[in-house]
This record gives sequence, structure tokens and C-alpha cells, in this order.
Amino acid sequence: MRVVVTDPNLLPLRDEFEDLLPKATEVTWLPADLLDALRTADVLVGPVFTQELAGAAQQLRLVQVAGAGTDRIEASGVPVANTYHHEDSIAEYIVWALIGLRRDLPAADAALRRNQWRSNVYDPAIPQPDTLGSARVGFLGFGHIGRATWRLLEAFGAQGQAVTASGKADGLSWAGDVSQLDRLLDESDTLVVSAPLTGTTRGIIGAAELERLGPDGVLVNVARGPLVQQQPLYDALQNRTIRAAALDVWYSYPATGDQTAPADVPFGELDNVLLTPHLSGITRQTFRGRIEDIAANIHALANGNELRNVVRL
Amino acid sequence: MRVVVTDPNLLPLRDEFEDLLPKATEVTWLPADLLDALRTADVLVGPVFTQELAGAAQQLRLVQVAGAGTDRIEASGVPVANTYHHEDSIAEYIVWALIGLRRDLPAADAALRRNQWRSNVYDPAIPQPDTLGSARVGFLGFGHIGRATWRLLEAFGAQGQAVTASGKADGLSWAGDVSQLDRLLDESDTLVVSAPLTGTTRGIIGAAELERLGPDGVLVNVARGPLVQQQPLYDALQNRTIRAAALDVWYSYPATGDQTAPADVPFGELDNVLLTPHLSGITRQTFRGRIEDIAANIHALANGNELRNVVRL
Repeated sequence: MRVVVTDPNLLPLRDEFEDLLPKATEVTWLPADLLDALRTADVLVGPVFTQELAGAAQQLRLVQVAGAGTDRIEASGVPVANTYHHEDSIAEYIVWALIGLRRDLPAADAALRRNQWRSNVYDPAIPQPDTLGSARVGFLGFGHIGRATWRLLEAFGAQGQAVTASGKADGLSWAGDVSQLDRLLDESDTLVVSAPLTGTTRGIIGAAELERLGPDGVLVNVARGPLVQQQPLYDALQNRTIRAAALDVWYSYPATGDQTAPADVPFGELDNVLLTPHLSGITRQTFRGRIEDIAANIHALANGNELRNVVRL
Repeated sequence: MRVVVTDPNLLPLRDEFEDLLPKATEVTWLPADLLDALRTADVLVGPVFTQELAGAAQQLRLVQVAGAGTDRIEASGVPVANTYHHEDSIAEYIVWALIGLRRDLPAADAALRRNQWRSNVYDPAIPQPDTLGSARVGFLGFGHIGRATWRLLEAFGAQGQAVTASGKADGLSWAGDVSQLDRLLDESDTLVVSAPLTGTTRGIIGAAELERLGPDGVLVNVARGPLVQQQPLYDALQNRTIRAAALDVWYSYPATGDQTAPADVPFGELDNVLLTPHLSGITRQTFRGRIEDIAANIHALANGNELRNVVRL
């Protein structure tokens, strides 16, 4: 079995991955000449598969994406499988962001570095903050990520509701379709944005929606930047129309390297926002789960068994 | 019934508290002349009760501390009750600190404010971090706070063990007495310090213990500063003998006002530490729980029923 890996996110787990594979599997990592490497490959593990690559890959039997998104797999005729495992890490990120922002903990840390004891105990002008357990959480989207997040938030004692494409979500106080968005915002002090970016959801959160979320409202976006309109979000944060936000997904990404402004507006100048570089799902445990899925599919292919997580044939 | 309140932490919930009390209760808040106010008081709600105050308070029937600690209640002859409710808020703080420090999330936020995308995806030199779910948590002390923290950490999937005074703790992988501290540190990558400060525990975590916790180790102290020796802790953080720490309890406190250096060593110059001003239990929900307990005791006193949380008679 010949496997070509083009996803650099698996490199840190290279040895662990190879240990999981059938004996005599030959793995080529990030080949300089991909077209050539694909000529004899049985499996491509990577996020991109073009018609040009498909033309070369005459023996290919599986395109295995090492994540959820298969939007850059163009070619047909070969089964395409994906894998998840990022949802627990993203749920942890959301919990981290919400506890910190509801209680202004980053600001307290910054103040104590200047010997200022920033809490209601030492300065009565600072309000006593609210726990995560007392949060009323609105989910915009309730897929893998929403469900994993709710499993945690429920343990804290929070209350939750959702707006989803189907209008359904198990285990929450209520769920509705997008026509219930205003109600969701009225009844929530926390908005977890984890819906896919579609024609319906692009820009779905704008000035009116942030106004409804209100001055105690905290927004977390772990889905795609453009679900939330950037200038209205910036304005709402600056004017304290909402309390705070945690943004892990952006409006611009580095083309190469690790430097670029993530938005057209200077979110980084605000003190009521957490900015992270699309890392909420990036942990060793995410990729450990993924290499286990991928190795299982390579074993299935070798043994003629059924593949898991096939998104198209 | 006359009630005198000297604890300023209850002021933000003044109206809520008075609504919970028996009709015709007269409440005096933070009296300028405390001795005089106590002459006719039935109940003192506050953290301090001296022999001098006791001499004036001839009608007093209950000293109700609005927190856990009764170490500043000197006088005897009157029942003393306490109250908790801080443990859920402290548990949330611990979860916040651990997720952020295990994943270097504060550093990622600081970097993205300079347009630098600090994660393994954009810079392969940065390791993929570990989830909270994969943590091996050692508890030094396992009382109200440890148990509330474990209820949350269990939902994340973490593994836990404890060293306690009694050598017992329910629900963990194992528990032992203080003779098992080295084993605890060897088997844990996370140390939650939530033991009382006693002759045995003062300075119990020093250089040798931090060395055992190791380079992936994260320490959270929510108990009392002096359980952990400050110079060895500073050195271990600076030298990366341990990975990081979150410190909510200190070696010096403001005598008045909100300004003072919290330690003799400059923890605030380190980037692998979170510094917070003893606020881990300070939320509206903590004090809401406390005023409910206190009001219940005042009702009990009015009706001749049994008091709750009496720590001494």
C-alpha cells in the first residue's frame, strides 16, 4: 500500500501515524513532486485534490481529508472520506473564552501586573461578575461543535437554546429555525457561532442582532469569520453594545507564513476581545483522533472492509 | 430583629438580601460606629468579631460570617455560622486557567494583536498543545473546592488523584495522605492547590516538588499563597522547570485600597503565569448563594428553628 500525505498538520504525529498503519505501507510525506508521487499512490491524505492531480493518480483508491472540510476536493471517481475530532478541543476553547470574558479575567491579570487589585473586593466600582454556570447560551448552529460544547456547558449548569438549519437540536431548552434568530438573541447572554458559512448565514449577525444580544452579551465565533459582519462587530465592541467577543476565525488569512492582519478593522486595539489565529481545534488530541480514523480507513482498504466517514463515492 | 452587616462584599446584593429577610427586620449596613450599632443587634454579618465588640453586643444571638473563614472571630458565647458557595466559581476559574495555560492561548491573543498567527498551523516550530481532557490532575487538598473542580474536570474527560489530610477522596483514580505527595507530582501534569494553610502545608511546594511536576506541569493555587514557596516558584517558571502557573492567592495583600505588589518576586514580568487578585470565588452567584444561607439563618433565629452551618456554639 502506498500512501501520500500532503497535510502538514499531521507531521508532528508522523511516527505515531506510521505505527498505526498496515505493515509494508510506504508513506511519502509532503513530496516535492506531487504529481509524480501520486502516479503509484493508493491513498492521498490531504485537503486538496484537483482534476490535474486526478489525471496522474490512476491507481488511487481513496482521497482521505485529514479534517472535516472537503470543499477543495474537486475530482470525482474516487471515494472521499473526512474525519472530525476537533469538536472537543473547540468546545474547550469556547469554555475558556466564556469564563474569562464573563469575568474580565484577562483584564484582572493585566492590572495585577501593575500591582492593581482589580476586583469588586478592592474596588467597589467594579461589578461582581457572573459565572458560566449562570449563562443563557444561544447556539447559532448545533452540529458536532455545538453538541460537544453543550456537553461541557451542561456540566457547568448553563441554560441553552439553538437556531439551526433544521430547526432541531436535542437536549436544549428549545430549538428553532433561522426565523427564530431574534428570539434566540433576546433570550441569550452568550452567542456561540458554529454554523456553516452559506448564502443564508453570510453576514447573518450584524448591528441589529448585536443590539439584541445586549450589553451583557458575549459572542464567540469558531465557525467562519464572515458569518459576523466585521465593522458592526467592531463598533458593538467599542461602544459596549455587547460586552465582549472571542474571535478564532477571520476575514483574512496569511497566504504564506504567519503574518497578516486578520480583519479590515483593528480588533487588536480593543480590550474586550480575545483574538486567536484559528487554533480552537488545533491540539494533539484532535490530530491523534484523526490519524486513528485515517489508519483505520487504510486498514479497511487493505482488507476490503467498509470505509468510515465516506462523504462521497 | 436587628441585623448589622459589616461585610462590604454583600453591598452589591443589598436589595436582594433585604427582600429575603423576615418582615420588620432592621438592617444597618457598614455602620460608622460599629460598637454602638452592635448594642441592640441580634445578628452580626461580617468577617471579624473581637472581644471588644463582644463586650458591646449584649443582645447578640448569632455571628454569621458571609464566607468560609472564621479565623477572625475571636469571641465565644455566641453561635458562629459560616457559608460557602464560592467553590463553583473557583472551579470555573481553575478550568479557565488550565485550558488557557495548557494551550498558550493568552500568548496567541497577544501575538495576533501584532498580526502574528501563533499556532502550529502557521509556525511548525510551535508544538500542538494538549487539551484539558487529556490532563492528569493532582489535587493537593480535596474539600469543597477540589470536589467542585473535579465535577467539571470529569466532564472534560480528565484523570485525577489527590493528596489530602485524611488520605481519602471519592471518585478519583487514587488518594493518599501527604506521604504520597511525590507520587502525586510524578503522576500529574497539573497541580491544583486547594488545601488549607497549616503548619504541615506551609511551604509544602518548593523547588524539589516543582521539579517533580515537570516541564509540562501547570500549577494553580487558589488556596493560600504561602503553601507554595515564592522564590522557587518564580525560578521554576522563569527556567521552565514547570510550564506555567495561575496564581490567585498571594504573599502580600493591600492593607487599604487596591494597590500593592502581591509578592516579593516579580511574577508579573513572566509570560507563563496568570496573576489574579484573589477573585476566583468572587461572582454574583457566590454571594447570591451566601445571602440565601444568611437569610435562612435569620429566619431560623426568628422562628426558633435550627441554624445551618454552625461552626461553633
